Amino acid sequence: MFLKNWWYVAGWSHQVTPGEIVARTIVGDSIILYRAGSGGIAAPRDLCCHRFAPLSRGRIEGDDIRCMYHGLKFSASGACVEIPSTDKIPAGVAVRSYPVLEQDRWIWVWMGDPARADPALIPRAIGHGDPAYVVNTGELHYDANYQLIHDNLLDLTHLSYVHEKTLGRNNSAWGRTQPDFTPLDHGVRVKRWLRDTPAASYAPMPDGTKVDQWSACDFVVPGVFLLRSSGYPVGTAERFPDGPAGLEPLYETVTSQAVTPVTETSTIYYYSGGQPARQAAEAKLRLQIEMFGVAFREDKDMIEAQQKIIDASGGDAMMTLSFDRSVAQFRRLMAKLIEADGSASR
Amino acid sequence: MFLKNWWYVAGWSHQVTPGEIVARTIVGDSIILYRAGSGGIAAPRDLCCHRFAPLSRGRIEGDDIRCMYHGLKFSASGACVEIPSTDKIPAGVAVRSYPVLEQDRWIWVWMGDPARADPALIPRAIGHGDPAYVVNTGELHYDANYQLIHDNLLDLTHLSYVHEKTLGRNNSAWGRTQPDFTPLDHGVRVKRWLRDTPAASYAPMPDGTKVDQWSACDFVVPGVFLLRSSGYPVGTAERFPDGPAGLEPLYETVTSQAVTPVTETSTIYYYSGGQPARQAAEAKLRLQIEMFGVAFREDKDMIEAQQKIIDASGGDAMMTLSFDRSVAQFRRLMAKLIEADGSASR
Amino acid sequence: MFLKNWWYVAGWSHQVTPGEIVARTIVGDSIILYRAGSGGIAAPRDLCCHRFAPLSRGRIEGDDIRCMYHGLKFSASGACVEIPSTDKIPAGVAVRSYPVLEQDRWIWVWMGDPARADPALIPRAIGHGDPAYVVNTGELHYDANYQLIHDNLLDLTHLSYVHEKTLGRNNSAWGRTQPDFTPLDHGVRVKRWLRDTPAASYAPMPDGTKVDQWSACDFVVPGVFLLRSSGYPVGTAERFPDGPAGLEPLYETVTSQAVTPVTETSTIYYYSGGQPARQAAEAKLRLQIEMFGVAFREDKDMIEAQQKIIDASGGDAMMTLSFDRSVAQFRRLMAKLIEADGSASR
Repeated sequence: MFLKNWWYVAGWSHQVTPGEIVARTIVGDSIILYRAGSGGIAAPRDLCCHRFAPLSRGRIEGDDIRCMYHGLKFSASGACVEIPSTDKIPAGVAVRSYPVLEQDRWIWVWMGDPARADPALIPRAIGHGDPAYVVNTGELHYDANYQLIHDNLLDLTHLSYVHEKTLGRNNSAWGRTQPDFTPLDHGVRVKRWLRDTPAASYAPMPDGTKVDQWSACDFVVPGVFLLRSSGYPVGTAERFPDGPAGLEPLYETVTSQAVTPVTETSTIYYYSGGQPARQAAEAKLRLQIEMFGVAFREDKDMIEAQQKIIDASGGDAMMTLSFDRSVAQFRRLMAKLIEADGSASR
Repeated sequence: MFLKNWWYVAGWSHQVTPGEIVARTIVGDSIILYRAGSGGIAAPRDLCCHRFAPLSRGRIEGDDIRCMYHGLKFSASGACVEIPSTDKIPAGVAVRSYPVLEQDRWIWVWMGDPARADPALIPRAIGHGDPAYVVNTGELHYDANYQLIHDNLLDLTHLSYVHEKTLGRNNSAWGRTQPDFTPLDHGVRVKRWLRDTPAASYAPMPDGTKVDQWSACDFVVPGVFLLRSSGYPVGTAERFPDGPAGLEPLYETVTSQAVTPVTETSTIYYYSGGQPARQAAEAKLRLQIEMFGVAFREDKDMIEAQQKIIDASGGDAMMTLSFDRSVAQFRRLMAKLIEADGSASR
Repeated sequence: MFLKNWWYVAGWSHQVTPGEIVARTIVGDSIILYRAGSGGIAAPRDLCCHRFAPLSRGRIEGDDIRCMYHGLKFSASGACVEIPSTDKIPAGVAVRSYPVLEQDRWIWVWMGDPARADPALIPRAIGHGDPAYVVNTGELHYDANYQLIHDNLLDLTHLSYVHEKTLGRNNSAWGRTQPDFTPLDHGVRVKRWLRDTPAASYAPMPDGTKVDQWSACDFVVPGVFLLRSSGYPVGTAERFPDGPAGLEPLYETVTSQAVTPVTETSTIYYYSGGQPARQAAEAKLRLQIEMFGVAFREDKDMIEAQQKIIDASGGDAMMTLSFDRSVAQFRRLMAKLIEADGSASR
């Protein structure tokens, strides 16, 4: 089950270059992305309405796309503008075209009813295209349902176990802390102090430095994870238990991550990792994005194994324990939106 | 859905050599082909009736085939003639055997009720085994339903797009011409002039020669494509719009192609390419069959992509446009025969 | 359909070493095996009850196993003994644990109701761990249903065909002899003389020696094959048609084989091959286990091909001929047990 009436990240802006057709499947629907002659991105369905040949094997002609099976040509909005052997184009010969926008270096496509495509629903990625930040990017394919990846991102206790050797830094602090939790209109906000903990290896600090680390994360529909982590001198958490508002941190790291369902059992995951330009050192930035790559593969291994077990045994009997509050809340929110969506098919 | 009560091409005569067992699956049924000691081909089901072991792992013994699991031996007609541990062969111990014929270098197997196997239904391949022609052969496996390959062969407008760089010769003439169309008892006949068009690269003409090209194609049940193409001086089409009957062409090329369903989603395609012996040059003949190989892979890429889209989305909403007349007619004919067949199973 | 309430071989004792987690799927259920600190084997389900993460990716901690997704820890009996972020362990947080025993170098796991796990049901492997015998071991994975492997082992006529070049020694004696057959409580007993036959190549005899060979095989639930073969001077069978009880053989060879269903379409097969210590020569013993490896791959090729045919065509119409008495008897016995089991699911 997918939420159809929402914006999904379809890739990085730099992935769609003039003259190239990029094929994507999002929430089960296959589309292509190409830059029309005018520079904007068109996002028609990857299917010629005539005999269901793929437009991803087509040819860009100015703003249009020509199907290279029998030569039908369609405008960026999906209208058929040419059938080679005839001058008469019958009514109804058209391909579906999806609303598409570029914002914060991500391409966003609205997979539902175009009339409901409200750009205000698109969340802002942190630091993407902002000169105050330096940001690197990556992506990862999962053979798993998107909700398992949501669950993973919504409950960071797993850092102490899945990422014991990487992000978890060999301590059980993530596992033992219950974070502060606030529901949002279209998501949840999760905040927490980790006290007297090693700074991230990619933070601009001498290795082994202990800090109080504040992390504030928004996880929003349809699966976008926006996290700022900041280090402060040990003792800060004691003095400011509700958060370090207004204090200057020793350092800050940021990441934005988008979980885009491909099918019910495959997902693509676009992520960035960055730091403020004023503190950014090339080597630490590279270490950050590389560690993300390693750590997210650890998630992938665990989640794909979990998916196989669910496939084999059904997952209905999964348990929600006390530390799964944000997991449960976000699942309820998605379920409510999918129901309202009326798109609870597939 | 398959038409069971018809002859299908099971391969080239030269593919079944003495002492070798050849396994084939046709319209979903697995059979073996082997030359009995007497030279004729036997075509039993690839399944020992005892414990369903494959006879393709058996041993030819004279006219008979022995199952190499428990040693049961069957005659070319499928009767069990030996059970090693007993002298008594119970009634009903037999394997199904299919009517088989060799004609025009093709092996034809009747996949339905043997009582209805009428050899007169087998079409004649063009030039196969005829000393007046020199013919080369090839074959190609498709991961696609046979009907998509029928559609492809019945509508040659695709030559301008799928084969733009090969058979289409970079012009849109195929795409823009509507052919003449005649229903046949068991097929359709499609004829057309292409005016002032480059001769095929493999025609015995200086490269770049322009001709009026006449093509006359029969596409007959269960999926046999028989095409003669002839080149004439430019202007001939103008003078003989209904065809060049009786005129001597500058050259002729011929091809016979058989589409044999393996399963609902896989198909094998046997094809020849040839020219009259009097005009045939070795280099041009080789070019012809090689270009067929390249071009048919272009079809395969397109059709397999089309099959995937149909699998993912259902193909019921495919459109029939004005230039799809022969496609639609042949689909109706097959549907009618399959219904009459009473074999609309699987 | 599986018999759940029975002991199955889950592997060799030496395959589960301290500190290592071994994953197994048996009759469709995935479990892990690990040696608790105390040395005994624990066999919990390979599934953390919380979010269905695999315990096979967990960490052994003394007698316990910790899930490395969110850190829950379980005792060898499956009780949850730690949830990192809380001191309160809710009722019902536990993983299923299976009864497990080691006997005769095999690990036996009871896949059904623990209350019914009676160790007396476990058959004794021949010579495993017995100083009077030297035994080598092997294993083989099949992409086939376990019943096809039972059928194969229950009817040794196939030695003359499947193993014509290996165990069958190029003669049709196995194929032509009907054995003596006795039903057992939980299996069948099959005995036979092969007269004036070449001794096995791995017997301690000059190559080409003819013997009268006596073989006595028990095949018992849930799929354990226990065979002793002995060679006697030619003529012995004539004098002792009912068997050589009490006579000293020229040599003896033994084998124990366990067929363990993985899923409905995959199976693992654990086998040994051995000889009495007093006659054992290293080269012959090696030849024996190597020939078993080669021969069992011949079975695997045949049975996997048979499975594909059954998958494609259904196997309901398989025939039971006069020499299939033990096959039919054992199938009935299994069907009766599965029905009594009440586990005729999956």
